[in-house]
Amino acid sequence: MKITQVRNATQLIVYAGKTFLIDPMLSKKDAWPGFEGTARSEIRNPMVELPFEMALLLDVDAIIVTHTHQDHWDEAAVALIQKEKLIFVQNNSDEQLLRSQGFSNLVVLSETSEFGDISLIKTRCQHGSDAAYAHPQLAERLGDSSGIVFQHPAEKSLYLVGDSIWIDAVEENMRKYRPGVVIMNTGWAHILGYGPIIFGKDDLLKAHRVLPEAQIVATHMEAVNHCLVTRHALLEYARDNHLQDFVSAPADGASVTF
Amino acid sequence: MKITQVRNATQLIVYAGKTFLIDPMLSKKDAWPGFEGTARSEIRNPMVELPFEMALLLDVDAIIVTHTHQDHWDEAAVALIQKEKLIFVQNNSDEQLLRSQGFSNLVVLSETSEFGDISLIKTRCQHGSDAAYAHPQLAERLGDSSGIVFQHPAEKSLYLVGDSIWIDAVEENMRKYRPGVVIMNTGWAHILGYGPIIFGKDDLLKAHRVLPEAQIVATHMEAVNHCLVTRHALLEYARDNHLQDFVSAPADGASVTF
Repeated sequence: MKITQVRNATQLIVYAGKTFLIDPMLSKKDAWPGFEGTARSEIRNPMVELPFEMALLLDVDAIIVTHTHQDHWDEAAVALIQKEKLIFVQNNSDEQLLRSQGFSNLVVLSETSEFGDISLIKTRCQHGSDAAYAHPQLAERLGDSSGIVFQHPAEKSLYLVGDSIWIDAVEENMRKYRPGVVIMNTGWAHILGYGPIIFGKDDLLKAHRVLPEAQIVATHMEAVNHCLVTRHALLEYARDNHLQDFVSAPADGASVTF
Repeated sequence: MKITQVRNATQLIVYAGKTFLIDPMLSKKDAWPGFEGTARSEIRNPMVELPFEMALLLDVDAIIVTHTHQDHWDEAAVALIQKEKLIFVQNNSDEQLLRSQGFSNLVVLSETSEFGDISLIKTRCQHGSDAAYAHPQLAERLGDSSGIVFQHPAEKSLYLVGDSIWIDAVEENMRKYRPGVVIMNTGWAHILGYGPIIFGKDDLLKAHRVLPEAQIVATHMEAVNHCLVTRHALLEYARDNHLQDFVSAPADGASVTF
């Protein structure tokens, strides 16, 4: 498999011969304001430009949208992606949203989804702390998000964990599917007063304890305002904790293959 | 009260007219190797020199030793502190250790300890994750550690949390004693493979959520090998999360008063 970091959580994944575009955020740098009520909201998003021509991103076999927060599915994605493109979404609510935006070839992921001979297993995650979800408006705003396990006889299993903090379900998914490669969103995005809503540095250690052989590809860093962990800091942390052989954090435009 | 950062967790605290020396680590820079099996163990400890003449540190009314790990109670402390100095310790085991080192004026802290008209309430903490304590050798090495709540009618309550990760007992202590000032050891010291054994940056947020009026004094940073959070990074995190009015991280030799 080949995983190409595009920007934020947007990635191109070639898996068992098919090319997937994950979580397209396609706007130009500074197109929209920072997320209100989050850390560093004075910074505009996206913080950097895309590293590729748009055509390269759109010429894919399928798109996967783990959830429809703006940094995973934005106005530019709605405008630029062909309306008949096959798009996998996490639930009926996101399916309805994309249908209302004109997309017609939508598949709602489940635990038994398939794309050709690739299994695409929807997995549970949690996009913030229990305290954040106890706050009704925050719970509404954070909403559902999902991960996906890719399986194919000719490939290692790939677990795209999604926008999540560390919860038991994540560990259980790791034990159940034994992925050889794990994509973790480690930007440590912060909501004011409630803290992290996605993984941070020490979640690398937790994943490595569960899957000591797995390669971890870290993403969702240095592209939106509320993410407080940089790739440099993450890789320094990995070295300090002797994890450097198991962790990569490709720059925008760079790829890793497994 | 006046809290003077000395180095690592070593502090001078003037509270209700009495001067306390906390957790004396008094060795010269580079006196002993980094802690084996921890992050960055190639770095020697202490990483920096003391900011004061020794006499200033030793001329105190009492000493408090929260636990006897080397970065809180070292060979230099044993050699330099007068044997008849009043020293508060956390439990019988530490009392026996210090007695074996020649100290004669030892008081074991409890929930009802007093020093003159100051209450010194021993509080529970946990010096590593449940996973670390499930490992017998690590559990032995991490051992017990304690915090102390200082109370006096003329002062705000002061909660010195001690070497701890965030556990329910810490939150319960905050709710029970409602301290106006909290000292947090936020260096995020890491054991290889098991992660943090003391607070990190996001624990500031957790404390602030429980005690939105309290001032937090952050310590135990930039002095021993396995601590991965710097004062600069901590204060940047506090600003990013709009906590800058509630968090200080005095440089070695600097003081804060409340």
